[in-house]
Amino acid sequence: MPRRYAIGRADEATHPDSARATLSEFLSTFMFVFAAEGSLLALNKMYGGDHGLGAPGLVLVALAHALALFAAVASSLNVSGGHINPAVTFGTLVAGRVSLVRALYYWVAQLLGAIVAALLLRLATDGMRPVGFTVAVGVGNLNALLMEIVLTFGLVYTVFATAIDHKRGTLGTIAPLAIAFILGANILVGGPFDGASMNPARAFGPALVGWRWNNHWVYWLGPFTGAAIAGLIYEFGIIQPEVPVHTHHQPLAPEDY
Amino acid sequence: MPRRYAIGRADEATHPDSARATLSEFLSTFMFVFAAEGSLLALNKMYGGDHGLGAPGLVLVALAHALALFAAVASSLNVSGGHINPAVTFGTLVAGRVSLVRALYYWVAQLLGAIVAALLLRLATDGMRPVGFTVAVGVGNLNALLMEIVLTFGLVYTVFATAIDHKRGTLGTIAPLAIAFILGANILVGGPFDGASMNPARAFGPALVGWRWNNHWVYWLGPFTGAAIAGLIYEFGIIQPEVPVHTHHQPLAPEDY
Amino acid sequence: MPRRYAIGRADEATHPDSARATLSEFLSTFMFVFAAEGSLLALNKMYGGDHGLGAPGLVLVALAHALALFAAVASSLNVSGGHINPAVTFGTLVAGRVSLVRALYYWVAQLLGAIVAALLLRLATDGMRPVGFTVAVGVGNLNALLMEIVLTFGLVYTVFATAIDHKRGTLGTIAPLAIAFILGANILVGGPFDGASMNPARAFGPALVGWRWNNHWVYWLGPFTGAAIAGLIYEFGIIQPEVPVHTHHQPLAPEDY
Amino acid sequence: MPRRYAIGRADEATHPDSARATLSEFLSTFMFVFAAEGSLLALNKMYGGDHGLGAPGLVLVALAHALALFAAVASSLNVSGGHINPAVTFGTLVAGRVSLVRALYYWVAQLLGAIVAALLLRLATDGMRPVGFTVAVGVGNLNALLMEIVLTFGLVYTVFATAIDHKRGTLGTIAPLAIAFILGANILVGGPFDGASMNPARAFGPALVGWRWNNHWVYWLGPFTGAAIAGLIYEFGIIQPEVPVHTHHQPLAPEDY
Repeated sequence: MPRRYAIGRADEATHPDSARATLSEFLSTFMFVFAAEGSLLALNKMYGGDHGLGAPGLVLVALAHALALFAAVASSLNVSGGHINPAVTFGTLVAGRVSLVRALYYWVAQLLGAIVAALLLRLATDGMRPVGFTVAVGVGNLNALLMEIVLTFGLVYTVFATAIDHKRGTLGTIAPLAIAFILGANILVGGPFDGASMNPARAFGPALVGWRWNNHWVYWLGPFTGAAIAGLIYEFGIIQPEVPVHTHHQPLAPEDY
Repeated sequence: MPRRYAIGRADEATHPDSARATLSEFLSTFMFVFAAEGSLLALNKMYGGDHGLGAPGLVLVALAHALALFAAVASSLNVSGGHINPAVTFGTLVAGRVSLVRALYYWVAQLLGAIVAALLLRLATDGMRPVGFTVAVGVGNLNALLMEIVLTFGLVYTVFATAIDHKRGTLGTIAPLAIAFILGANILVGGPFDGASMNPARAFGPALVGWRWNNHWVYWLGPFTGAAIAGLIYEFGIIQPEVPVHTHHQPLAPEDY
Repeated sequence: MPRRYAIGRADEATHPDSARATLSEFLSTFMFVFAAEGSLLALNKMYGGDHGLGAPGLVLVALAHALALFAAVASSLNVSGGHINPAVTFGTLVAGRVSLVRALYYWVAQLLGAIVAALLLRLATDGMRPVGFTVAVGVGNLNALLMEIVLTFGLVYTVFATAIDHKRGTLGTIAPLAIAFILGANILVGGPFDGASMNPARAFGPALVGWRWNNHWVYWLGPFTGAAIAGLIYEFGIIQPEVPVHTHHQPLAPEDY
Repeated sequence: MPRRYAIGRADEATHPDSARATLSEFLSTFMFVFAAEGSLLALNKMYGGDHGLGAPGLVLVALAHALALFAAVASSLNVSGGHINPAVTFGTLVAGRVSLVRALYYWVAQLLGAIVAALLLRLATDGMRPVGFTVAVGVGNLNALLMEIVLTFGLVYTVFATAIDHKRGTLGTIAPLAIAFILGANILVGGPFDGASMNPARAFGPALVGWRWNNHWVYWLGPFTGAAIAGLIYEFGIIQPEVPVHTHHQPLAPEDY
């Protein structure tokens, strides 16, 4: 029964480490979404209006996401665990590695960071409307849902294998790099089909500021489903049971590093 | 005589670490092939139908392979050794660093992972036919075979030099990064000639699901030959003999880390 | 009151470590600006004259900046702290982590490095005029200023989180990689709007040698403002106060490593 | 007087570590040149005949060089010091960090590796003629020479700062990454002007197999000059003198790790 943190600890709400971790999630998500969504506006600025990506555009967008996510995860890994993504937080919650209280804090911080990023983008670009995500023409909603599930599975599986399962000694450079790189690779796959969000905050901020809600549910249900599958498979299929349970089922929180 | 593991140990079949390692190979190969093959389908989605890559398309495909392989190797390095490739497993088998039993497990897991990835890609893209590999027009089969041999030699030599020869202290971030980067570089070379697979599982899954078998033997014989040459050269030409034999000729298995 | 180094120490001016650190800043900034500005001249050489970037050109420029900054920061991190950027030095000065004397040395070294790079570029390209930065048509000066502020905030926040807050153990590969990657990502955003400098030395050297001063103030005020905000937020919002103050508020100088 | 190894040790010629290091240089240089030169042939295959690079082609070539050099340096760093480049060997020789005997071994191994790579490329591509390097139209020989000097200065300065000056603790992932990244960045600058070789072996192998000798001297004199300047400046300007001389002036050889 690993979900012993699902109730949360009362003192967590006022703990200074919780405040720092939440602030760190807010700032890193802001930094990530500004660059990620901003790369789409840069394409629109160069080519004028919404348009197909093409291979160079897709490489540009995938690089912007991957490079920025690396910095965002590296900047917060040792403070908040480097989630930057409500789906990652959900996967760790399902696996019993973060408390519900902390997950709620993180979710609010991530969504706020994405909203502020989209607002500042609009100001800095003299009013350009955020693009966000939509299911491409010729792709069914269920196809897009499956795409988001599989892509997010890969992302969150990588988070568990490199950042959370740090008893194996891989924490460090490798975790943010693996997380950022699988995000970039997956965007090179899913980009032309559904945009490849894998991150509800990444989708929500621009959707709110740009007021585009078509198929928005896909970008919540897909990532949360993929993250839950990844968290459960890694937690119960891969992690070594030899380690005593009371040290093994720690939440991914700063005081544990 | 380093092949003392070629017979295998009877208890390996039921050892929980073997099961975890095999599951890890399956999931990481799935994650890798989904992104790698998916990047070709993304190009087809953007440009409509099979087409020449061009420099932007080739960069896109090479990046998708390299970024995804980094995450896949990083996610499994400490569990299974991070093979993700039947040719890598063959090279380590030839060098006496993995038992035949474990190699068989890995091969089945890798092929299954690639097949499931190709199937889910077909579902998520509403039925697009996987592309896989083929020898380009104007390139002879023997030329393509030599290309696969040389490219896989580079890949597996890098695996030995960074992931297996970890007595020299380079294991860590450097191994998955070097493995992923040489894969990406080699795709930028071999892509226009024969697709640059270097990985029979990567070639087999999409071939089966897309039912394209032209020159398929090239993508098995080439990688296995290149991997064997690399494994033997590194094992007997580079590795320092000062280390006592009984600790030096270990299989690349999680219990050795 | 963390600015206790704002006055500086008298012996710093003649300390051999100061000289080495200053030389290191000069050489690394030279190396960075030569590659960064040079990539714009390479585009002009290939396409003839100044022109719009397009997605491939923007990817090229962002990669040149990110790859070169990684080498520049990695080469100087353990000698000078790896600033390579007057705005980074200003952020650390505002946060009380570098003395004013050292900051002045660094600023002179950074500006000189950028000027020498622009001069040698002009010689090596048989007289091509450096491009530098300008606010794009259709973008207001205040929009560009805000863009520079936000982009530099992300850059300097990452510097603080990975290179300066090394008590958390992330110093090493991760710091130069995170700094270089967020620079690359941010260029993919701001490039089409204002060039995305985030670095007054990077802007000043080519401006002087190419004698282009349009909106030049934007590339000083924006980065300095963003850097100050990032330094203050990280210093007072994220850094753990448990560490004793006298070891915590050290300047980012080589003798502290 | 740091050149005390310039005479060489008599036993070095038959030392097993020398043989391993030389073999490692040969194989890693082979792997690097195959991918680097091969990326130019891949462009020719896709577009037919020699042609201008354009931004996508230049990104492709720079990535192939950088990714392959990372694997090559990572694979040989702990065996041979990871030179892969006669200019790097010359810089370390000038700085007194490698013996003349070892330098001669490395040079032969590097040139042979590049020749074998060019030959196998010709076989694998059914006879395509290697491209190699040439000074672009509109660029003077002296301009190209200066370009090679400055670009190689940056490369070898980075080698010294990250791989050789490892007393500062940066050896590991950071050295091969910094070396590979500055190579990639510099190619994005110098590519359209003179090809940006920075490596006489990289230039010589394809020149011999493709029999193209125009301006070939530029690709020897430039890199050797830039490497010597970088080695001398780093050795006498940056390296801390506090370390006792007898441990400080070690050759960059495997027994020193």
